[in-house]
Amino acid sequence: MSRPVVVDAMGGDHGPAEIVRGAVEAWREHGVPVVLVGQAGVVRGELARAGAAGEIDVAHAADVVPMTERGAGAVRMGCSSLAVGFDLVRDGAGPAFVSAGSTGAVVACAVDRLGTAPAVLRPALAVALPTTAGGATVLIDAGATVDPTPEMIAQFALLGASYAQLVLGVADPRVGLLSIGAEPGKGNRLTRRAEILLRGMPLRFHGNVEGGDVLTGAVDVIVTDGFTGNVLLKNVEGTVRATLALAAAEGVAGSADLGRVARRYDPETHGGAALLGLTRTVVVAHGSSRAATIARACVVARDLAEGEVVARLGDRLAIRPGR
Amino acid sequence: MSRPVVVDAMGGDHGPAEIVRGAVEAWREHGVPVVLVGQAGVVRGELARAGAAGEIDVAHAADVVPMTERGAGAVRMGCSSLAVGFDLVRDGAGPAFVSAGSTGAVVACAVDRLGTAPAVLRPALAVALPTTAGGATVLIDAGATVDPTPEMIAQFALLGASYAQLVLGVADPRVGLLSIGAEPGKGNRLTRRAEILLRGMPLRFHGNVEGGDVLTGAVDVIVTDGFTGNVLLKNVEGTVRATLALAAAEGVAGSADLGRVARRYDPETHGGAALLGLTRTVVVAHGSSRAATIARACVVARDLAEGEVVARLGDRLAIRPGR
Repeated sequence: MSRPVVVDAMGGDHGPAEIVRGAVEAWREHGVPVVLVGQAGVVRGELARAGAAGEIDVAHAADVVPMTERGAGAVRMGCSSLAVGFDLVRDGAGPAFVSAGSTGAVVACAVDRLGTAPAVLRPALAVALPTTAGGATVLIDAGATVDPTPEMIAQFALLGASYAQLVLGVADPRVGLLSIGAEPGKGNRLTRRAEILLRGMPLRFHGNVEGGDVLTGAVDVIVTDGFTGNVLLKNVEGTVRATLALAAAEGVAGSADLGRVARRYDPETHGGAALLGLTRTVVVAHGSSRAATIARACVVARDLAEGEVVARLGDRLAIRPGR
Repeated sequence: MSRPVVVDAMGGDHGPAEIVRGAVEAWREHGVPVVLVGQAGVVRGELARAGAAGEIDVAHAADVVPMTERGAGAVRMGCSSLAVGFDLVRDGAGPAFVSAGSTGAVVACAVDRLGTAPAVLRPALAVALPTTAGGATVLIDAGATVDPTPEMIAQFALLGASYAQLVLGVADPRVGLLSIGAEPGKGNRLTRRAEILLRGMPLRFHGNVEGGDVLTGAVDVIVTDGFTGNVLLKNVEGTVRATLALAAAEGVAGSADLGRVARRYDPETHGGAALLGLTRTVVVAHGSSRAATIARACVVARDLAEGEVVARLGDRLAIRPGR
């Protein structure tokens, strides 16, 4: 049996009950071996309630990082399920980590305990957004590195392209640079320099794309800095909610029908956000995740770990002089 | 009679016919005096077709800036309706300018021919976005200054608050800084410094807001740099379109009903984008504007000009040391 995906049992709005059920589902339905990290008594109780007592290994962690914790505070907690879990993957117990905890806390702890992979300048968060074309577009960086250099953006593009290959099955992903005009040279200081670098990188660079192109499937990967990416991701979620709320208020459709549309656009149905560029694979599921989403996140974590995103990029990660 | 609003008759996807009809509507329905700038024969022909021959003054401009022109090229055209129109307002023929031309071209020509007002560092584009709460939130800067300093962002906040007072009638607008977390200190280098400055400015600073807060009416003004603002504005438009397309594809509502929702969320129904911080008022209507939207843009231009956005801010525009 391959090494297990390490799952934070204590994170999320519905943890540990939904997390434990998700881990059980990952193992039974998808054949993904898992180990649960958290307060052992609580986790074993949930396993028993799920009818899976003794079926899944449990690693004890005394403390729980609150969902309101966004960064530094989580790093200082040495006995949390995040700290114990990251130490397990760092030390080789498993190839990947899954948490539905606060994104800020998970990213901060991951960077602190795992560190970036060789040749990678900074990590980036990748999220698969569903498109009207029926597939998905990878948004990277969705919030891990808020002040990147152009060189970091060029690497994010490679990491995002690998994600599109491994998780979405796109053979030769088209990469677009998020900017404020499709023409070459449009943008701010950061994107103008990144655009030049991207034209020299070993990937299929489409050119610049705009905020209106995010959900159309115009490209397979949209690369941007972590600040703009995070604003964009939250704006997509907020605008979908607002549009459906207005449609409901105008009486154009019933709430059950509109709820179906909302779920279709929920980025979390695609398995959560993947933190790429560290020494191990980390997947952050949405805090509101139910069991099926956790199970999907475990599958994504296994696929990414088996594909070894950074290792397969190898010397393609080197930055060439821009043209 | 007060001085007329100067209207670019040649800009827009439906110009000059819809522009001329909009100008006539502004005058007849809203009492806004206007002068039309463009190829005199064409414009007079449209006035005659609208049953308004001789009712509106016409200023001749030989050339037309193409809708595909986004900046520098427009600045070099000395006899376009933009060049002639901006010269008219600069020289005092009217207090404000309205165009449905390419936003990039209008902004570039406006900055070139009008210049920034005293004490203003850079201009910013303000757009009123409809909210689920029933009102509107002003987004500033939506694309005029893509690499601002923190000091410029602090001034944009004051300009946006004035816009909310003059156009939306909000007595004491709450201003939020767009960032990636509501907590103080969350953000990138630019927003962390801007946040400190904003706490020292003479305005009602709400703190940080996120990409999901844009359409909820949480604040009256959202301030950001012109790059992030432009990405956000286009993403709102694209996400509304995508959500409604998906709702239609899922068969939850008829296209006529969904079209009503789309129009409700069209930023252009609120009068277009206002370029604030120059020596005169400039309003950029959407390229797809029909007559009623042009008329509304003329009303906004008059209101902003009468309120004299920059003059009323006076020494409040001065930047205090951050805390």
